[in-house]
Amino acid sequence: MAQQTRPARGMRDFLPEDVRRREHVIAVIEDVYRRYGFEPLETPALENIETLTGKYGEEGNKLIFKVLRRGEYESSGETDLALRYDLTVPLARVVAEHRGKLPKFFKRYQIQPVWRADRPARGRFREFYQCDVDAIGSTSPVVEAEMLSAVSEVLGRLGFTDFTIQLNHRALLTALLNGAGIEPALHATSLVAIDKLDKIGRDGVRDDMMARGVNQASGERVLDAFEDLDLFDRIVAQAEGGAAARQNVAAILELAESTPAGGRVKLTPRLARGLSYYTGAIMEAAVPDLAGSVGGGGRYDGLIGMFSGERIPACGFSLGLERILVVMTERNMFPPDLATAAADVMVTLFEGEPIENALKLANELRATGLRVDVYPEPDKLGKQLKYAASRGVTFVVIAGADERAKGEVTVKNLTTGEQKSVARSDVGRVLGPS
Amino acid sequence: MAQQTRPARGMRDFLPEDVRRREHVIAVIEDVYRRYGFEPLETPALENIETLTGKYGEEGNKLIFKVLRRGEYESSGETDLALRYDLTVPLARVVAEHRGKLPKFFKRYQIQPVWRADRPARGRFREFYQCDVDAIGSTSPVVEAEMLSAVSEVLGRLGFTDFTIQLNHRALLTALLNGAGIEPALHATSLVAIDKLDKIGRDGVRDDMMARGVNQASGERVLDAFEDLDLFDRIVAQAEGGAAARQNVAAILELAESTPAGGRVKLTPRLARGLSYYTGAIMEAAVPDLAGSVGGGGRYDGLIGMFSGERIPACGFSLGLERILVVMTERNMFPPDLATAAADVMVTLFEGEPIENALKLANELRATGLRVDVYPEPDKLGKQLKYAASRGVTFVVIAGADERAKGEVTVKNLTTGEQKSVARSDVGRVLGPS
Repeated sequence: MAQQTRPARGMRDFLPEDVRRREHVIAVIEDVYRRYGFEPLETPALENIETLTGKYGEEGNKLIFKVLRRGEYESSGETDLALRYDLTVPLARVVAEHRGKLPKFFKRYQIQPVWRADRPARGRFREFYQCDVDAIGSTSPVVEAEMLSAVSEVLGRLGFTDFTIQLNHRALLTALLNGAGIEPALHATSLVAIDKLDKIGRDGVRDDMMARGVNQASGERVLDAFEDLDLFDRIVAQAEGGAAARQNVAAILELAESTPAGGRVKLTPRLARGLSYYTGAIMEAAVPDLAGSVGGGGRYDGLIGMFSGERIPACGFSLGLERILVVMTERNMFPPDLATAAADVMVTLFEGEPIENALKLANELRATGLRVDVYPEPDKLGKQLKYAASRGVTFVVIAGADERAKGEVTVKNLTTGEQKSVARSDVGRVLGPS
Repeated sequence: MAQQTRPARGMRDFLPEDVRRREHVIAVIEDVYRRYGFEPLETPALENIETLTGKYGEEGNKLIFKVLRRGEYESSGETDLALRYDLTVPLARVVAEHRGKLPKFFKRYQIQPVWRADRPARGRFREFYQCDVDAIGSTSPVVEAEMLSAVSEVLGRLGFTDFTIQLNHRALLTALLNGAGIEPALHATSLVAIDKLDKIGRDGVRDDMMARGVNQASGERVLDAFEDLDLFDRIVAQAEGGAAARQNVAAILELAESTPAGGRVKLTPRLARGLSYYTGAIMEAAVPDLAGSVGGGGRYDGLIGMFSGERIPACGFSLGLERILVVMTERNMFPPDLATAAADVMVTLFEGEPIENALKLANELRATGLRVDVYPEPDKLGKQLKYAASRGVTFVVIAGADERAKGEVTVKNLTTGEQKSVARSDVGRVLGPS
């Protein structure tokens, strides 16, 4: 008769230990982003379906969870709402909606779940958290440099010593493809092929580009340029827009050098990034032992205009919480003092003893900042101690008839086994934070 | 050409000021619940549709957001997933699923959004946060007393001095209805009528009960008992189960008296609560100037068994974040030091000056814990100062050519207008937290 109890496919329950690890990472990210002057923003999980469609490309569209209309329309099978697919499109909508209320330069962070109906796989879930920073309103390379600085500081504070950040520029890619003789109509499809370079290798990409209509010589020339920065620079310098984009990348690289991103960022011509809305610098952060990235982003000066009608520059970076957690778990990078116990202290209850005494004692200890559990029902001492030990609780306060008669309580340290009598009036001072 | 930019109906965007207020309330709730030994839990936004159906009654069922199947099934109009409607049913599923991993007494808190396709109204949204605590595994009145204590401490810490908590018991209501001569088959429908007492008044409820098949004398007797605690006690004492339930309520009331809930909790015979899964004590917290409650809960010893097949006692309380925020906003209850500025310090940029100096300075100040913004592009000083003032920033650090030549920076306090020269090497010490 019992019902299915597993979470839905690709979704996860987070038990207390999981939540504490997630909260640790989120707290570091929030702290760094706040210190860079980013402000918090939250948007609804559900958006009108038209807000999301046409923003993520054909593949993305298929992965959007759509919500059935309600009431009399339910049987029509029509949908009107969709679950948030990323945090960038909602931000663009918010900026367009609240333009008058927001500052000229709006810097926000946003840490919320997104949903994609992807095939679940190791480290890939259908509900996952994105941790985004975006700066709206300026085309200055200071924006990208500060973003690289903030992201590097986050990763450094979390304990990553071996991360690298790839930097490229959509206009550089355009200049390269033009310079290699690929007609503009084939650029988007070429980038889809190039994006798979790490996965399918050079020959695979060449064949894929040819299948997409690129001639072999042009394809080879692009792939050669990915392996030879001098060749890359020569090709893009001659193509329209190439010099300006190269200068922009150089400025970002130079500025980033004087920040915590120093030594981490490298121009990587083959970096393409999947999303179609990027217009300028694109970036991706990685660690050696994780295929794919821990985060990425770039400049998208056209997206907000799709909502506001007015072109507003913007640049953002998104860290993937799940991917960071995967690596931190494998490398055992969580601080040893990350709370694992349910409580610091447990107060016992005994048959025939006044329970209100125990509740008062617990609340006195809580007032000192301690996390205090009360065993919920009178029971044998042995069972209560065993329970406390199984919960990772260090101190058990025992106040039975004997102790009460003497105005004392017994404090037992479950780690050392040590046990001592303490005056009832003194127990807050003895157990409380020193 | 521009697209719709409003959030979906009944949903809201939270700008930085909104998020900070929400975070303030959530931080207080989390701190108190942790100190009571509750541990954090999170569940997915999407549940398999069968997990939710049949748990919330017919009205509830209609308000569930359902997600269309994907891929080849999309055109079928079928749904397989649904958005979380409350945090209690997911908890029951999790407890059944992870029973072996969870402690005998599992105390969890969970603060997450839920979604209901209700008609939006003032203070009623389609996405809203619930802040739940639940204790699983014990039928002891200590559970209810600790819950009342924790909720009272939350409300007290938030600054509510005038809240009250109504307490009742489903078995008392059953005893009352039996004692008044209402047959068991009419109990559920009678409770639906009684639940509207505050809204439609005594005569309204009497008429409604009669319309539901209750004879007038029985209806009047129930309503009399709501106004006369002695009569209530006499009726329930004679009905089956009444004495035990009355004793349970008395035990809860007595224990709660010795906690922060002391003086707040009152037996309220007319309290019915809507949800069908309650089996024991039911509770509701209210403040005078808000129609309806700021939170409520109760004991539901049967719900987990719907998933696990094994009866497991449980009791919970849910605070409504939105309702708390409505009252706190109206009463201006937020702490005056709640951060409103985007940053503590802003560093200026000037044409021709090395930007990396500004970035280095900003990062030095951030290392002291300050929140530091960098004006993103070289501009006139006046414009930069005006921008900083509009963002609520107190200190602007100006490092132009003159200052650089002297190895100094100028620190301007925008609140006082005061401006002073500080040695470059000293600025962290001067501005940093003392």
